[in-house]
Amino acid sequence: MLSNLPIGIFDSGVGGLTVYRALHERLPDEHFIYLGDTARVPYGTKSLNTVERYAIENARFLESRGIKLLVVACNTASALALPAIRSAVKVDVVGVIEPGAAAAVAIASGKSIGVIATEATVQSAAYSAAIARLDASVEVIEQACPLFVSLAEEGWADTSVAESVAAQYLSRFEANSLGALVLGCTHYPILENVISRTLKSAVPLIDSGEAAATEVQSLLESRELARPAEQQPDRERQLCDDLDHFYVTDAAQRFAKVAERFLGVAPSVLEAVEVWGHDELRTN
Amino acid sequence: MLSNLPIGIFDSGVGGLTVYRALHERLPDEHFIYLGDTARVPYGTKSLNTVERYAIENARFLESRGIKLLVVACNTASALALPAIRSAVKVDVVGVIEPGAAAAVAIASGKSIGVIATEATVQSAAYSAAIARLDASVEVIEQACPLFVSLAEEGWADTSVAESVAAQYLSRFEANSLGALVLGCTHYPILENVISRTLKSAVPLIDSGEAAATEVQSLLESRELARPAEQQPDRERQLCDDLDHFYVTDAAQRFAKVAERFLGVAPSVLEAVEVWGHDELRTN
Repeated sequence: MLSNLPIGIFDSGVGGLTVYRALHERLPDEHFIYLGDTARVPYGTKSLNTVERYAIENARFLESRGIKLLVVACNTASALALPAIRSAVKVDVVGVIEPGAAAAVAIASGKSIGVIATEATVQSAAYSAAIARLDASVEVIEQACPLFVSLAEEGWADTSVAESVAAQYLSRFEANSLGALVLGCTHYPILENVISRTLKSAVPLIDSGEAAATEVQSLLESRELARPAEQQPDRERQLCDDLDHFYVTDAAQRFAKVAERFLGVAPSVLEAVEVWGHDELRTN
Repeated sequence: MLSNLPIGIFDSGVGGLTVYRALHERLPDEHFIYLGDTARVPYGTKSLNTVERYAIENARFLESRGIKLLVVACNTASALALPAIRSAVKVDVVGVIEPGAAAAVAIASGKSIGVIATEATVQSAAYSAAIARLDASVEVIEQACPLFVSLAEEGWADTSVAESVAAQYLSRFEANSLGALVLGCTHYPILENVISRTLKSAVPLIDSGEAAATEVQSLLESRELARPAEQQPDRERQLCDDLDHFYVTDAAQRFAKVAERFLGVAPSVLEAVEVWGHDELRTN
């Protein structure tokens, strides 16, 4: 039965675990397959063509494993490669940009919207475009914050270093006139506290991963693809338990270490795989 | 004539430009071909197998362009993949680890040696091993400094953020008992000033790229491969002039921007290329 298949999630690396966590919380009956492209991470400093190529390889790998829906957790891949991914696979594809933009517009009530993201996402202006499609009158201010990724992965989210980096990047936002700030990179929710403190005024932070989880839920319901709840579950579902499978393209040990930092627990099932070269095989 | 061929340099990305600068200063008559693997940068968080694969592809690409000598500017690739690279190409290969280790041992006069580098280089313990081969009695303390790379690329070398990051990473070194500190990643020379200030005591900093340039010079002389000086040069050689060719595997525009930040000038000749898939072609 199609509804019993897992949901596929891919990300450039470990950051997408914040999207996995949001999906897991929102959809406790679902099973997940996660792919982190750790051999080629990060995507945020790379070009359109390269991000498209990597994203298609990841999407096809997950599709070959049997999934009912694909979530592109990576903001950069969502911003640059969503049309290419949709052409490459048969399953429905949910990115994080449109849901994040919609959540921001809904809460900002006409005030301007800030977006913090990778260099590639900011350069693509994908958030600005998605917001404009919903409300062309809203002002959008985008800011790349490349150091946030290393800070999160180092486990330095709550240090004075993180505070001074945040102060530098967020200085261009006038918190009083900001209706919402979109966390447009999967790593940034790890820095939520320091970002809030730095903005001083209480600006709502939009976690695009959470917004995407809401969209996934609606889509599963409308397509009648939701996995039926177990009548008498053997046990309660836990983050990273053995019902969810994790794949990486490199350096599984480092992934497990950072996963523990992000989620408090490392994956039970974690395997290193190769996702490239599938294209060549297909055309032969 | 073999001596007229350029010297090949490869790096995981833009950081190796500090090694190019050192070679250019030391060997003003030579021409260079530089390859930055910007599609797959960074190497410092990746595994041995992956770094070996990428490094071999880069080395073969440069060899196919016609070079008389190959310099592996990337510390991570030098630490993990030098034997694999040497087996893959016919030209002589110079890495940065052995020259950096030798320069440190020479200057430390028996005091302990600090090494700062990427996670993968530290995990490989390549510097410790190279130093032990020269003097087994020297204590070596290695420390990974992942945030230094983003700080250098952001152009934040002389900010208070850089100061607090350096204070955090360098806190384990007791400057008084340190005979030398090896800058074991091509990005770190950009942060030389803040590193020196943080250590307080005057510890000699070893730039492995400069040490490698000295080794390249000896090797060219002993093999009689040095390019003869022009009798009446048309013009003075400049960094990044059109006698040196730069290749990247992705995002040439970003490379040019960071190059300007690192060297004060962007390459005159910069081209995006693909270096992968050569293996498959070879065996067919």
